[in-house]
This record gives sequence, structure tokens and C-alpha cells, in this order.
Amino acid sequence: MSSSFGKIFRITTWGESHGPALGVVIDGVPAGIPLTVEEIQKDLDRRRVGQSKVTTPRGERDAAEILSGVYEDVTTGAPISLITYNKDADSSKYDNLREVFRPGHADYTYWRKYGHRDHRGGGRSSARETWGRVAAGVIAKKIIASAGIDVFAFAQEIGGIACETFDRDVIEQNIVRAADPVAAEKMIDAILQAKEEKDSLGGIVEIRALNMPPGLGEPTFDKLDALIGQAMLSVPATKGVEIGRGFAQARMRGSQSNDPFLLDGDQVRIGENNAGGTLGGISTGEDVIVRVAVKPTSSIEREQDTVTKNLDPEKIIVYGRHDPSVVPRAVPVLEAMLALVLADLVLQNRSARIEW
Amino acid sequence: MSSSFGKIFRITTWGESHGPALGVVIDGVPAGIPLTVEEIQKDLDRRRVGQSKVTTPRGERDAAEILSGVYEDVTTGAPISLITYNKDADSSKYDNLREVFRPGHADYTYWRKYGHRDHRGGGRSSARETWGRVAAGVIAKKIIASAGIDVFAFAQEIGGIACETFDRDVIEQNIVRAADPVAAEKMIDAILQAKEEKDSLGGIVEIRALNMPPGLGEPTFDKLDALIGQAMLSVPATKGVEIGRGFAQARMRGSQSNDPFLLDGDQVRIGENNAGGTLGGISTGEDVIVRVAVKPTSSIEREQDTVTKNLDPEKIIVYGRHDPSVVPRAVPVLEAMLALVLADLVLQNRSARIEW
Amino acid sequence: MSSSFGKIFRITTWGESHGPALGVVIDGVPAGIPLTVEEIQKDLDRRRVGQSKVTTPRGERDAAEILSGVYEDVTTGAPISLITYNKDADSSKYDNLREVFRPGHADYTYWRKYGHRDHRGGGRSSARETWGRVAAGVIAKKIIASAGIDVFAFAQEIGGIACETFDRDVIEQNIVRAADPVAAEKMIDAILQAKEEKDSLGGIVEIRALNMPPGLGEPTFDKLDALIGQAMLSVPATKGVEIGRGFAQARMRGSQSNDPFLLDGDQVRIGENNAGGTLGGISTGEDVIVRVAVKPTSSIEREQDTVTKNLDPEKIIVYGRHDPSVVPRAVPVLEAMLALVLADLVLQNRSARIEW
Amino acid sequence: MSSSFGKIFRITTWGESHGPALGVVIDGVPAGIPLTVEEIQKDLDRRRVGQSKVTTPRGERDAAEILSGVYEDVTTGAPISLITYNKDADSSKYDNLREVFRPGHADYTYWRKYGHRDHRGGGRSSARETWGRVAAGVIAKKIIASAGIDVFAFAQEIGGIACETFDRDVIEQNIVRAADPVAAEKMIDAILQAKEEKDSLGGIVEIRALNMPPGLGEPTFDKLDALIGQAMLSVPATKGVEIGRGFAQARMRGSQSNDPFLLDGDQVRIGENNAGGTLGGISTGEDVIVRVAVKPTSSIEREQDTVTKNLDPEKIIVYGRHDPSVVPRAVPVLEAMLALVLADLVLQNRSARIEW
Repeated sequence: MSSSFGKIFRITTWGESHGPALGVVIDGVPAGIPLTVEEIQKDLDRRRVGQSKVTTPRGERDAAEILSGVYEDVTTGAPISLITYNKDADSSKYDNLREVFRPGHADYTYWRKYGHRDHRGGGRSSARETWGRVAAGVIAKKIIASAGIDVFAFAQEIGGIACETFDRDVIEQNIVRAADPVAAEKMIDAILQAKEEKDSLGGIVEIRALNMPPGLGEPTFDKLDALIGQAMLSVPATKGVEIGRGFAQARMRGSQSNDPFLLDGDQVRIGENNAGGTLGGISTGEDVIVRVAVKPTSSIEREQDTVTKNLDPEKIIVYGRHDPSVVPRAVPVLEAMLALVLADLVLQNRSARIEW
Repeated sequence: MSSSFGKIFRITTWGESHGPALGVVIDGVPAGIPLTVEEIQKDLDRRRVGQSKVTTPRGERDAAEILSGVYEDVTTGAPISLITYNKDADSSKYDNLREVFRPGHADYTYWRKYGHRDHRGGGRSSARETWGRVAAGVIAKKIIASAGIDVFAFAQEIGGIACETFDRDVIEQNIVRAADPVAAEKMIDAILQAKEEKDSLGGIVEIRALNMPPGLGEPTFDKLDALIGQAMLSVPATKGVEIGRGFAQARMRGSQSNDPFLLDGDQVRIGENNAGGTLGGISTGEDVIVRVAVKPTSSIEREQDTVTKNLDPEKIIVYGRHDPSVVPRAVPVLEAMLALVLADLVLQNRSARIEW
Repeated sequence: MSSSFGKIFRITTWGESHGPALGVVIDGVPAGIPLTVEEIQKDLDRRRVGQSKVTTPRGERDAAEILSGVYEDVTTGAPISLITYNKDADSSKYDNLREVFRPGHADYTYWRKYGHRDHRGGGRSSARETWGRVAAGVIAKKIIASAGIDVFAFAQEIGGIACETFDRDVIEQNIVRAADPVAAEKMIDAILQAKEEKDSLGGIVEIRALNMPPGLGEPTFDKLDALIGQAMLSVPATKGVEIGRGFAQARMRGSQSNDPFLLDGDQVRIGENNAGGTLGGISTGEDVIVRVAVKPTSSIEREQDTVTKNLDPEKIIVYGRHDPSVVPRAVPVLEAMLALVLADLVLQNRSARIEW
Repeated sequence: MSSSFGKIFRITTWGESHGPALGVVIDGVPAGIPLTVEEIQKDLDRRRVGQSKVTTPRGERDAAEILSGVYEDVTTGAPISLITYNKDADSSKYDNLREVFRPGHADYTYWRKYGHRDHRGGGRSSARETWGRVAAGVIAKKIIASAGIDVFAFAQEIGGIACETFDRDVIEQNIVRAADPVAAEKMIDAILQAKEEKDSLGGIVEIRALNMPPGLGEPTFDKLDALIGQAMLSVPATKGVEIGRGFAQARMRGSQSNDPFLLDGDQVRIGENNAGGTLGGISTGEDVIVRVAVKPTSSIEREQDTVTKNLDPEKIIVYGRHDPSVVPRAVPVLEAMLALVLADLVLQNRSARIEW
């Protein structure tokens, strides 16, 4: 297990889907940052289940408590421990999954790796683990805000339906978190349709960081791009990540792909930002643009082929309260991941030079 | 700077494009592995410049020397230091780049981050740094071979031309390292055409690991997928990474995307392996399949807009000995990266359980 | 802040003396280890306050709860989160310490480093933080027990009174945890005398590991000795650590100091074990022997010179419920630290070689 | 193996006593620091063999080359690779040690851990490895100098003869590096006497950091004290470390041991600095004072009992060119270790707070 992420600003998540509680310890938070539990809860509510007709009706409130590291509403430099108690876990529904592996889930691989596993609701492999990422992301956002950075994300595509316009203001006003209100309606219809068909949809989340300072990213192996790669692909259900033009850039010619350096007053600007805000693994000052592929929810109420722990063939229908598409709820999680990467890099960058 | 990668099996690369030498220190190599410099050189020769008409004519031999950690052709457990001396660096060609930033390169971002930089040939940001990755990859391949794993890579697409057939045996028989000999010819033509037009091409590299044991990968943040994401996007010129069906899986429905568990004798097999060999961040036992987007070479002999360190607008033509497409030489580098990820995970997995 | 210790078996402690709770997250625990909360509580009760007339009467029960990583009383490989709630914290006694620094405590240095601090009961710098170390130590002990290792500690010296005999069985039978029952009585008298005089005593704790396998320790920087040095000196109130003969060995000649290699049947034995069980940073197979200097409790009810945050001179008397000597309660903490070091090294050693 | 030390400022040493070369890679060095090879060589010459009649006559020049990370005599932020070639290694003298273990050395433990080892001159376990620590220490000293800190060390005691006076200026003027010129003469006589008797002497090195800023040290596990413990005990031949009054403080009462806070103008001063410059693991601003116990040289030309790899009893006399006391040459090594610890903490401390 490696339950920690980050070098200076470092989070450690713990907890299982159906255990008594989940949480995160955030180490390396600078002292002096104002912080209240209400601020943390705000983002957690965006990740929460049961928000709308396109998400699972599981009833967790996901209420956060701050157990350490904050005194009189200001961070002290000590590790911040955040916890939420599982209240609506209904493990009885999972009894039949003790011996059998759900397709698309980690049941089989955990069993092969660890031998002994908590099968209830996916145990440690459940996306409930992302609670701690979003909670920690709020603190990360404050650190990067101190460097001027602003992070947000949206559903760029669900079930093949893509946003054709972009309006940041509409994102949190529709239940799929699309940036295009027309596409949003189509996405909602598609999700409800899939749900009715006992099927599920995937999609693409786009995450952006605005007002970036140049200079963030630690070559060679902790390049901004590399840490984004690790961060995004550590989130359940993700299958790909691209930066800037990404895979499309692989089909460009150098003369198209290269962003020229231009001057806007005394500001250096970088062409059309094909690069997505990074050159040589270091931020350019242009917006960071990341897209992440999210697969369709693995839990579907359809009969599928599987095997048991005793290696007998079996049929399985995965009942339960599942999101027909996890994309809308993945938006705040992936947004938090970019914030976590950038917060660590903002702090690391304080050591980049010495004025002699 | 973060010049190290890996947790137990950990490499640290050093060196600049035009400095006296480049190298890598590989720590955490288990004792007892037979190792000769000839084995290391073999993969380095695949990465070497000047191999063919589609690569740069720069004349580095890239000869490796083993300076430590190996005694009587067997590893001792001590760190292995490998070095190569730069012999054909011609820094005079870079004198005009001291004050000006090449589009698509890291010149600008290094300057913004570090203030002081070695501009010759890109300095630390040069792809010459990947020498050490390939050298270390040879040792990684021996570690994973001890677990049965076999890693290889090929050019899946260059300049929009994709392999339509797959034959592993042809990969190293054509100078672009395609798995389809017909596509290979077209790719070569496209590269030479681009070269004549003083332009460059990008493409897609596919990397696979065969004979995978199940159980490799360390949730939550060092998932097999996450480490692949970091590893691949730490390589210069990469813009995206996907696993299994990747971005295409975002457009599937759950009923298509889910791989059923099947039995092949007493072996569990996993459907069509849409997942690309990983579930919940842990290897399933099926082939690991990764694709990486590589952008077109940034150095082109065309006039482009740029700025100087004094923030004056300037025109630049990047002369020099450059690959018109880096894809063929990226193949052994990205292959090495997967080997590095897996070697570390093979060793980490030794701590996954205790038989009580 | 760096609240984590260990590389594979890695603990992260969090919590303040007077916050709502304290805890520890233990990552990298192999799956398959039987574990109950009762086992953990047993060692915690040895560290607990209010055990006897020589310890503080603060009334914390220190009851542990397991929040994750254990399913049906067996570890799953997932991070184990342990928590205890502060029940008997009386912060009102600390109101006068908001503006003033207690001599011998971390009040001043936290204020200089972090600016903002939780002053109540020492906040993060309180020895209450060691709760998590002892709790995690129980799991560490199980891991090392699987390699045959047995760890224990005792008060070798308190207030200048040293054990002259050694009987492991008496250690937990006297309230100071001495290995010599006669010395124990004198130590108790000395502590009570110091308490009456509103003063405090220090001492020396000896920690041993028996039935050591040879081969534990990771040269060059994670030598067994080096990790012991870090582990022990990370515990509050420690001022020195020595291994084997330690400082006395600095006054020996080589001909006395060198342990000869001897044969006992087919077992290699190592002289008088002056080395304390380690050569070149790797365990020899002989007992590991460590001694740690513990300073007298800093909190004393005597008038002392200090300054305020506004840099005014001030007199201070530190009232409160304090141990007149922390040595007896440091015994289980330092014992846990050796277990933590060894557990990580046992797991790391699984990667020392490959049989080719 | 764990050949790296430090979190942000991180060194990785490699190389064996009789291999072709030894070196160190220093990662995380801020850009902008002036640096020449001559500066590095100056400290290396203090560590070098063959300096005087009390050190081994082995003739290594230990000449350093800078291979990367420095451009036009200024650091670039890229990893700095330093190398020295072994020129005077005479491996023939070690042929008889292939099958037999030298008492007091790591021969036996390396063999038990790794199976396969380079026995020549101790291989990886040789104190020649410390070359890289001293070389890296020069860069560390520049980083801490930028924060005002000044580090030095001296032989406080050799063969039981202790310095009774302290004069920093005399340290580098006598061949044992004592701070008391009278004691120095006695130490030299004692060493020569021991040499004549084919025996060896140990001693105590004291290391100090002056002009310390308050605030350095990262609780909980990377306390200044803890990192000093790890750093010092990672050096070959060390057996103990103490800070401030150390073991003597264990025999004090709280009323003696506690340093009062005093005012010197608007400067806070801390009593007699019994604490040795650290409270709660964070620097107080007073001098950091560390003492390290160094054992007598293990290689002595006297007959000693040992065993062979085949577990036969054997007699051994360790011929060769050895220091009769390693203390004088340990002085620059242990001084470098304190510089390495502090350099990392100076950089880490840049993340301690955010001004909101």
C-alpha cells in the first residue's frame, strides 16, 4: 500500500467504504492559513452522493470533522486530521460478494494481492476513499490561492456527448457539471436513459488551472506533467490523461504544434497554448489544461460472467445504489487532484533558487 | 529538482546535454543478478542517435561504463553507477540561444524557474537525459524477468499513420520501430517528407508487458496506473497516456467496457482486456497495455516567433542535428519506463502479505 | 512538519495534547496479520498516565479504536487508522501559558517557527503524541515476531541510580520498570523525593532486541544504527543514544573493542557483543542493545526565568499534572521505536537479493 | 540499500573502496550558488589519507570532478554529480580476505545480507564512501551560510585524552584536529604509541553550528535531533551521539537541566544551553552542540579469532595501510553531516508558514 501523495504537502488517506469512518491526514501544511470546517464541507458536498437524480441515492452526509492541526481557525503547521463517519453503509447487500468478483472492480486483484480483503462495498478500493482527497484539496486550494492560482473542472463529455460551448458559470448550475448548458441537458437524458437500461456511461473531465505563475514543476521525474499523470490515474475509474492538445498533438506537425513566444506588453504569452501550460515539465504561466478519461461505472444491474474465489464460473448482477455515471462526481475529485499537485509544487518551488 | 524515480528500486539521473558526462545511479538493486556492460549497451544502442536516416546524425556513441555495484559480473546490492561521456557535443551551435527561447522547448521555463541555466543543447531538459533511464531499464528488465514479465514497445502511429497489423518480430527490423511493416514504410516516407519540409512529426508509442503476475501495484497513490502515468509523462515530448482502451473506454457503456472474468482451465482470464491489465490499480495477470502521445520535435529549421531574455521580440530558426520525429527513439525509452515501474512494484509486492 | 516515519512500514502520527483526539495511520502493513484492539491496548496501558504514584495523575484512558485496515480481526494490507479521544484535557490550566514560554519546552521554538501555535499542554510538541507510536509499535512487534525477533526495554538508570543486576521478569513488576528490584526501590524513593522538592529526574532507558536474524539494516544511510538514532532522538526528552558499548567504546583500544567471530556449533557468534548487534549498519544476529538518555521533566513547580511573546522578562512556575520522571513511561515508547525500525527493515530486507 | 539522505537537499553516494571510482549525486541544490571544484577540494583534502604520521599512508589524491549541475561556476538547480577515481587501490592485499571475515568490520554482515560481495577493502562498507559526504557537505555549507550558519568540528577526545581548553583556531593547526594544543600533543603521542603496539584508538568528535537561526527542524520525526542522530550514526565507526549535555543531562535534576529564557537586549538567549541548541526538535538560536563516539579502528595487525565463509575457525591479522585512529579524519566527515542536515532543514523551513 502507498496511501500517501505529495512530497512537502503530503496527504495520507485511510478508510474503507463500509468501515466505521474514513479520513485523511494532511502533513506539511504551512502555519498561518485561515481554515474552517465549513470551507471544507463545501467541496465535500459537491462530491457527495445523493445530490441529484443522476447520482446514487446512498445517503452519506460526508460531514467532516477537524481533529488536529488547526487552532482558533488557523493552521498551526501540525498535521491536519480530517474524519467522516460512515452512517449509511448497508453491508448486508454485499454478503453475496464475499466469494465472487465483480467485473470491472478491484475485487479480484485485491484478493490476489492481499489474500484477505474487506469485500463490503469495495472496501479500500471504493471511490469513497476520494472523500479525503476532496477534503485535502480545499487546503491545497488555499495554498495555491496564495500564489494566485485558481483551479476548476467540468464534464467535457459524457456518453459521447461533448460540450460545444464553454461557460464557467454554468458548471455548478447543472447536475452533470458540464460547461455547456445545452450539452448538459443531453448528458442528463443520456444518463437517465442508460440508468433505465441498467447500463452506465463514461466521459471526459477537463481540469484547468488559471493565473498560473511560471516555474512550477520539478524536473526530471516530478515534472508538472508527470505528477498530474500520477495524480489523475490514481483516481478510481480513470483510464487516460492528456495535457494541452494531448493525443491530438501527436498528429500535428512541429510547425503547428509549437507555441510561439509572444509579447503582450511586458508579459510573455505562449501562442495558442497547445502545450497546455507546461514546457519541459515546468509551468509556463499559461493555463494548465488537463483532460481525464473516466470509464463507465462498473456496477451494473445486468447479468455478467464472473468466477468465484474457488474458481468456479458464476453469473453476477451487481445490485445496489450506484451512479449511472461517475463523471459528475469525479469533477470535484479530479479538480482536487490538480490542486494537490500544485500546492506541493508551490511549496517545493520555494527552494528553487538562492539569491546570492 | 527531483531527479529520482522509484521507491525501493530507485534511479537518479544526472547530466546535461553538453556537459562532460551523463549518468544514472540505481539504488535498491537486489544482490545476485548477473549483469554485464554489454547487456546494458544493447538497449542503449536502440536509443542512440545516428542509427538511421530518420534520426539525428549527432555522433554520440553513448558507451556505458559500470562504476560500482557490480562485482565479478554480479550485482552486490550496492548502488550501481553508470556513466557515459559526451564526445560529440558541439556547443558553438548554441551560442545564439543563450539569450533567446526556442518555441516548444524548456528554455523559457528553466529560465523563469532557476534564473541561471545551461542553455547548450537544452542542458538538463535535453532528451539526452533519457540515456540513464534506458540504461537503468536493462536492470529493471532483469528484475521483472525474474517474475516472468516481458516488456516491449513499438511505434503505433507516426504522423497520423497507424499500424494496422501487429507483428512483434518486425518491430526492431524497421527503422521507425512499427509493428506493421507496411505502415512502417509509410511512416518512413512521411518522416523524410517532413524533414525535407523542415518540419517534424509526432506519434503514438504503445508499450506492453506480457506474462504479468497478478498483484502488482500499490493502492492508493502508487497504483500501477498512477505510476505509469508519472513515468510516461516524465519523458520529454510526451503529452498524454492511456491504459487499455483509454479515452475510447470513456465512450463505451459499462456493459461493453466491463471485462467478464472467465476460466481457461484453472486460469482466470479477463474478457477482452479492455482494462489493459489493471483493475483498482493492481495488475490482473492480463497484458499491461499503455499508449503514449509524443508531440512532434520542437526543433525545426523554420522561422518562428519568440522573445529574448530582455523581453524583446525575435525571430528564431532552430538549426542543428535534430530527429524529424522522436518517436522511433522514444520507443526504447518508454519501454524502459514501464520496466522501471514494474521492477519497483515487483520488489514492493514482496511486502504485500505475511503468511501467519 | 514531517509526521511520518518508515519507508515501507510507515507511520503518520497526528493530534495535539488538548485537541479532540490523537491518532496514527500505519501504512504498508502486510495483509494477513491477526490483530485485535485488545492487543494494542495492552501496550498503551503501559504508556498511560496515572498508573502509579510516580506518574502524573492525569486521567486519560487512552482507549484505542481501530477505524480501518483490519477486517474480521486480520489486517487487509490497507492503512490502519487508530484513534483515541482526549477526555481529561483541562485546558484552563494553560491559559496563562498563551503568552509565555516554559523553560525546557518547545513553546518558544514552535512560536518562532510557526508563528501561530496551540499552546494548550504543549500542543503538537506534547509527549501525548507518543500514543500513536506505542499503538503502531504493537503491529510492528507482530511483524518482527514473524521473523522471530523479541523487543523489550527497561529503566537502566534514574536520577543517577543504576540497575546493578538484570532480571527481565521484574521489569514490569515495579513501577519504574527497572531490571533490578533493589535499584527499583531506590529509584522510586528518589523520584518521590524529587517530587516533594518540586523537582524532576532524568535517566537512561535500555532497549534490546533478541533473536535477531542477521542482515537487517540498509546501508548507507538507513543503517540499523542510523535509523535507531533517528527513531530514539525523535522521542520527546531524549538527549543521546548509544549502541553496544557506545561512548565507552570510544575509550577502548581496537584489540579490546573488536568482537572476535566464534563458532557455537554451526552458529557464528560474535565475541562479547561490544558492537551491540550491528556491524556496518547491518544486524549481526547478536542482541541489539541501545541506550537512550532521557532528560528530567521540564515542567517543575519552581520559579524560573522566562520571557513573554512581547519579549518581556517574566517569572514562571509550571503547575499541572506532570511526571516527576518520564523515564518509566518512556520505556514502552522507546521499546516501540525499536520495533518500528525493525519492522520496516524486516520488510525492506525482503528485497535484498534475488536467487538467480 | 538506501544510499540517499535528505528530503529536499538530497545526496546519493555510490562507489566501492577498490572500484574504478566513487561519487555522489546531489539533488535539490538551489540554482544561483557560486561553486568551484577548488572549494570542494579544500574540504576533501582535510578528509584525505596520507596527510600526516597519524593517518594511513594510502596515496589517494581524492581529486574531485564536477560532471553536472554547475554552469559557468554557478549552480543551475540540476543535480550535481561529483566523482573521484580510485588510483591507489591495491586489491592484491585483500585476496586473502575473500573467504574470511575481519572482526569489527562489515564483511560478515554484508555476506549474510547480500550473499555476493566485493570484499576488496571493505567494498561498499569502506569509509571511502564518506568522500561523497564531504564533497556534498561543501555545497551544504554554502546553503547554510546563506542563512548565516557556520559549522565546524574537532577531536574532543582521543584514547581517553580530552581537550581541556577550547580554541577554534588551533583545530586545523594540529594533525589530530583537537581544540586544545596541549591535549593535541598527548593525543598524537597516544596514537603513535598505539600504532607501535599494532593497536588502535577511538575517541569523541564534537560538532557545532554557530549563528543558528531559530526554527530549523521538522517535528515530529525529522526533528533536528532525530536527523542528527540518523546522520551521525550513518557514518562508519560511530557508536553514539548526544546533543547538548546529552547523557550527563540524564543525571541532572530539572531545576539544573532547564535552560531559562533570558533577554540580551531584544535577543532571547537560552541559559547555559544545556539543551545544545534544540527544544522540541527545533533550533533555539543557540549553538547546536553534538558529540559523537567513534570506535577504535577495527583493522589491527594483531592475531584475532574469526571464521571463514565455510564456517571454519580461522586466525586473522589484518595487514594493510590503516589509520591507527580514524578520529582526525572523522572530524571533516561528521562536520559535513551536520551541514547536510542543516542545509535540508534550511530549505524545508521555507515552507513552514504562509503570511496570509
